[in-house]
Amino acid sequence: MIIIMSSKTTSDNVADLKSILKERGYDMHLSEGVETTIVGAVGASISPEEKAAFIEQVEALDYVDKVVPIAKPYKIVNKQFHPERTILDVRGVKIGDPTKVVVMAGPCTVENWDQLMYSARAVKKAGAHILRGGAYKPSTSPYSFHGHGETALKMLADARDELDMPIITEVLDPRDVELVAQYADIFQIGTRNMTNFSLLREVGDSRIPVMLKRGMSAMLEEYLQAAEYIASRGNYQIMLCERGIRTFETYSRNTFDINAIPALKELSHLPVIADPSHGTGKRSLVPAVAKASVAAGADGLMIEVHHNPEIALKDGAQSIIPSVFDDLMRDIGLIATAVGRTLEQ
Amino acid sequence: MIIIMSSKTTSDNVADLKSILKERGYDMHLSEGVETTIVGAVGASISPEEKAAFIEQVEALDYVDKVVPIAKPYKIVNKQFHPERTILDVRGVKIGDPTKVVVMAGPCTVENWDQLMYSARAVKKAGAHILRGGAYKPSTSPYSFHGHGETALKMLADARDELDMPIITEVLDPRDVELVAQYADIFQIGTRNMTNFSLLREVGDSRIPVMLKRGMSAMLEEYLQAAEYIASRGNYQIMLCERGIRTFETYSRNTFDINAIPALKELSHLPVIADPSHGTGKRSLVPAVAKASVAAGADGLMIEVHHNPEIALKDGAQSIIPSVFDDLMRDIGLIATAVGRTLEQ
Amino acid sequence: MIIIMSSKTTSDNVADLKSILKERGYDMHLSEGVETTIVGAVGASISPEEKAAFIEQVEALDYVDKVVPIAKPYKIVNKQFHPERTILDVRGVKIGDPTKVVVMAGPCTVENWDQLMYSARAVKKAGAHILRGGAYKPSTSPYSFHGHGETALKMLADARDELDMPIITEVLDPRDVELVAQYADIFQIGTRNMTNFSLLREVGDSRIPVMLKRGMSAMLEEYLQAAEYIASRGNYQIMLCERGIRTFETYSRNTFDINAIPALKELSHLPVIADPSHGTGKRSLVPAVAKASVAAGADGLMIEVHHNPEIALKDGAQSIIPSVFDDLMRDIGLIATAVGRTLEQ
Amino acid sequence: MIIIMSSKTTSDNVADLKSILKERGYDMHLSEGVETTIVGAVGASISPEEKAAFIEQVEALDYVDKVVPIAKPYKIVNKQFHPERTILDVRGVKIGDPTKVVVMAGPCTVENWDQLMYSARAVKKAGAHILRGGAYKPSTSPYSFHGHGETALKMLADARDELDMPIITEVLDPRDVELVAQYADIFQIGTRNMTNFSLLREVGDSRIPVMLKRGMSAMLEEYLQAAEYIASRGNYQIMLCERGIRTFETYSRNTFDINAIPALKELSHLPVIADPSHGTGKRSLVPAVAKASVAAGADGLMIEVHHNPEIALKDGAQSIIPSVFDDLMRDIGLIATAVGRTLEQ
Repeated sequence: MIIIMSSKTTSDNVADLKSILKERGYDMHLSEGVETTIVGAVGASISPEEKAAFIEQVEALDYVDKVVPIAKPYKIVNKQFHPERTILDVRGVKIGDPTKVVVMAGPCTVENWDQLMYSARAVKKAGAHILRGGAYKPSTSPYSFHGHGETALKMLADARDELDMPIITEVLDPRDVELVAQYADIFQIGTRNMTNFSLLREVGDSRIPVMLKRGMSAMLEEYLQAAEYIASRGNYQIMLCERGIRTFETYSRNTFDINAIPALKELSHLPVIADPSHGTGKRSLVPAVAKASVAAGADGLMIEVHHNPEIALKDGAQSIIPSVFDDLMRDIGLIATAVGRTLEQ
Repeated sequence: MIIIMSSKTTSDNVADLKSILKERGYDMHLSEGVETTIVGAVGASISPEEKAAFIEQVEALDYVDKVVPIAKPYKIVNKQFHPERTILDVRGVKIGDPTKVVVMAGPCTVENWDQLMYSARAVKKAGAHILRGGAYKPSTSPYSFHGHGETALKMLADARDELDMPIITEVLDPRDVELVAQYADIFQIGTRNMTNFSLLREVGDSRIPVMLKRGMSAMLEEYLQAAEYIASRGNYQIMLCERGIRTFETYSRNTFDINAIPALKELSHLPVIADPSHGTGKRSLVPAVAKASVAAGADGLMIEVHHNPEIALKDGAQSIIPSVFDDLMRDIGLIATAVGRTLEQ
Repeated sequence: MIIIMSSKTTSDNVADLKSILKERGYDMHLSEGVETTIVGAVGASISPEEKAAFIEQVEALDYVDKVVPIAKPYKIVNKQFHPERTILDVRGVKIGDPTKVVVMAGPCTVENWDQLMYSARAVKKAGAHILRGGAYKPSTSPYSFHGHGETALKMLADARDELDMPIITEVLDPRDVELVAQYADIFQIGTRNMTNFSLLREVGDSRIPVMLKRGMSAMLEEYLQAAEYIASRGNYQIMLCERGIRTFETYSRNTFDINAIPALKELSHLPVIADPSHGTGKRSLVPAVAKASVAAGADGLMIEVHHNPEIALKDGAQSIIPSVFDDLMRDIGLIATAVGRTLEQ
Repeated sequence: MIIIMSSKTTSDNVADLKSILKERGYDMHLSEGVETTIVGAVGASISPEEKAAFIEQVEALDYVDKVVPIAKPYKIVNKQFHPERTILDVRGVKIGDPTKVVVMAGPCTVENWDQLMYSARAVKKAGAHILRGGAYKPSTSPYSFHGHGETALKMLADARDELDMPIITEVLDPRDVELVAQYADIFQIGTRNMTNFSLLREVGDSRIPVMLKRGMSAMLEEYLQAAEYIASRGNYQIMLCERGIRTFETYSRNTFDINAIPALKELSHLPVIADPSHGTGKRSLVPAVAKASVAAGADGLMIEVHHNPEIALKDGAQSIIPSVFDDLMRDIGLIATAVGRTLEQ
């Protein structure tokens, strides 16, 4: 770590810092400039837990202006330590394979069997690999629809059996993890729960793959630490998902952070999925951003498709209809080819 | 609600919309402009649940460009429906009383009995009314300290008995609510859990006062809907807390949204607390922002005080020492007087 | 426009508003709801100037809560009024043509003849169509390099003649517009000057094509109004350029707003260029975002290429070297084909 | 500066860096950690110009991951080098005096003599010290009102003579600086022009005091560099002005950054003014934020007052009426007393 001393630092302060660092096993390199003194501290072999706490302590020292940690605060999900990319295998579907692009699609919410199957058959036919559908829905308003729960989970499982497609569905509450695990092939953790650490630990204790969505105001470093929560409990089957961040722009509901796609791939070995439905919040922008994501290197897409968005119970404004999805799959296939990948599994 | 039609709207579309609105009991007023047609829909008496769903459906109509809901999406916490301000009474301490300013202070985290009591006695002596201290700590890193749990809760309860001060402490997991309720006088819901709806419902089912912190990227309307979650379960003892939002500025850890203080007071009847410790993340800025908050009309302050921030296990950089807190309490008292309030209870 | 009345509106207020609206030629439609009264006002034929002022006046009325303007605040650049796309022809290079993708490349700053020509020849050889290079450079610090001015302009003009490539260069000061016009084929207005209205008017008075970059915190509606400034002076040869916006994320210098590409294309008929160099600020992310932009429908790219970024006088961190640019051009060509376009001119 | 090497750094790279640093007169301190090598470089006595360029060059080195500059990129306006606070004297009114609070008030725009004098007399009577009024107005829309120009300047000058109050007015175009200088006591540089470097240099060449508003997306470090632009031309009579930043929150037009008040005062010796009118954009929030600013240590306030905001030509929604201003001045006086200052001059 690099320690930037305050401008009023005395030699006593430096001596004090030296003994604090030494006690923890750090070597200290002092650089005295005209205006500022900076200290490089390296070499201690302490656990990540101790390091995190120690950095906070040093930062709180009166004569310290700022601490710049050098090492990334995540280990297991860090590409530097695991250069080979993680490839998940979910009932035969490969996620993270550099030669393939995976597509997860389906309705935002499971409303009833007919609606689910209509969309499910449509996306299957168009070439989607994994079926998505919400059984538990987070809603900003307490008065909105919150999903059909276990009834919906059962329908999803039936759809999986009928169509031979793995299913992904969101889990919201640590107490539901066990139940959802009985049905889901992949857990989805939504943007509002990226810092719900109890939930992260709970899915980290399971051995079911997890798609962790980025918090809408999470920096990449925080996002990867959330993934590290899951990994630190022993569940390494994690995929990341960029779904738009919150900015000042209001034309689209969120701002899809396309930079995050290559950035996450250079920071981590985990697969990176793009969700252009939430990333734009606007049906008309979904196809362009889906194509852009694959061009930028995304390992997969998650797209909301509804047979009739106009009567959808949730998020109709961002769902596309099956015929648009058909066209999109064809276009995605062309882009995939252009970047050396395929939609074939 | 106001419905803005897309530019390609036909008279068939208008007729279609009319029948959709009519079915739900809405009156429709059509305004055809040169470029755009707008529709005002009022008068239906449907539940908030149905309304929320209905707005999403209308927004998804192909010929609809945008729906502007007019009514606020929260009812119980809305000042328009309950003009008289909510005043909480926590073991005799009044929160929300227009003539008083309440101060909650104490260490970020309960580390051990001596540390807790040193800070607790110091803040009590300086005039603080409520003791804060963390037993469960949310941490961005899985490797950071997460609090001493029930051991810390017991210490807080002992401190309350010894010093006759109510205590406030954070609850992170819906499964902990029952346990924390045995000790805490006020539940704190932290910024990372503002959209943890399971947790909101759980504290909404209790009858213990709740301080709900604003999510770091929550708009005020979303924030008040989170409060509505708690209220909709029957717990009306809620106070709000501005604790800084996430912006592009990096000099301070968060940007304290001072506008939110008068804004929340014009939108809701709930008490509004300010947390300048997290709102700045920088010890040197805490006193100025604490004073500003009271001048802006905050009903109270939450401030982190540590006998020795330099060895604090968490958030040392933003904790102030007791002597600074003493001075601050004196200054806060002067500002309180200037706005017609008092620190006396 | 839609006028949302405050909750305390009386029938006198409504009458007052009616007469105000009537005087301006507006028809008024009243919708009285349980909580709120809303007013639709349409039909007046007043100039955009008068309308802008009138909306501000109505918004300031004591009994008015909010005005929601319906019509877009820009006309000439609005796709609704000019559905056919604008295609610029700059010395034979077509910009905005739906079958072509244009690439502008070159060094951030013109440093000297050899450096300029080295990069210029390299980008020409790789297939770039337009040469970029800075003669006047905006710098956050007064102590940074500000460009070689007219000397650099002359070199650019010589490079154009030698390589038969049109040139684009930034103009910073309204007093320089005349001089720059003697050399440049396209004016560039940078992100820091999007709201420099004197400069916008000055280039609007010229008849040279303008590439207007989006302000780093400009909403799309504001951005298109800035373009309207130029158009309102009679210069319709405008292209837009997304170059990243400012958000909380610090891993990349800016957040490239990929949503803006399809959004600008549905709002305006002007060509849309993407600048992944500034949009990421990080060399390693440039190729992915360049490809994404073309996949999303961008009409062109602007990319910084330096023969040796490590000794560049400006923005070395985001410049790519010629060999990387070669590879990128090949990849861009594949993506262009996948979306039905070509790099051929 | 601190140089963080990329993870693939070789000993050849280190040697290469050493020679680059040495050539510029830097001493280099190497700290080799398990994951990363960091280099501290101090001691060179090079000009700020050379340093800025050199940092960019080092950052572009292939084997360098990041450069953390330690020294602040501004000198003249840096408190570290000029610990005594700057106090401006504008026709006898002291700005920046730790015992005084200065109030600038008046209409957003000078509309006509009667309107100007009505507001001017009202604010003078209520105790304001400096008269504000716009002659040149920046507007997002080309179709909005842009001010009466020199006619308005003359009225302001006449108002000054009649009421014996210094005047402040905005200048938008470098070509207008000379003309405005004939009338104004203080130049205002607006938020949209904080990075209009030509304009900054032009007012820097004059010897008239300048109030430089913060750009709506400017970090404090960038803001102080903009002030440094003015100072670097020899004009040291500068005051800063926090006027709200752009965030995701839409309830208020801007988010007033109250943290910036104490932050700017610890970073710079320049006076700090608060503009709650633009900082909120909402009349109802202005008084609370005005009081908060003074409590936080602002040296002054700038407030828009209009005798009849409902017919104001600009920004009516955020202007307050004289009677509200009267009450506010009384409240501000009480807060000023509470922080050891006075409104008396």
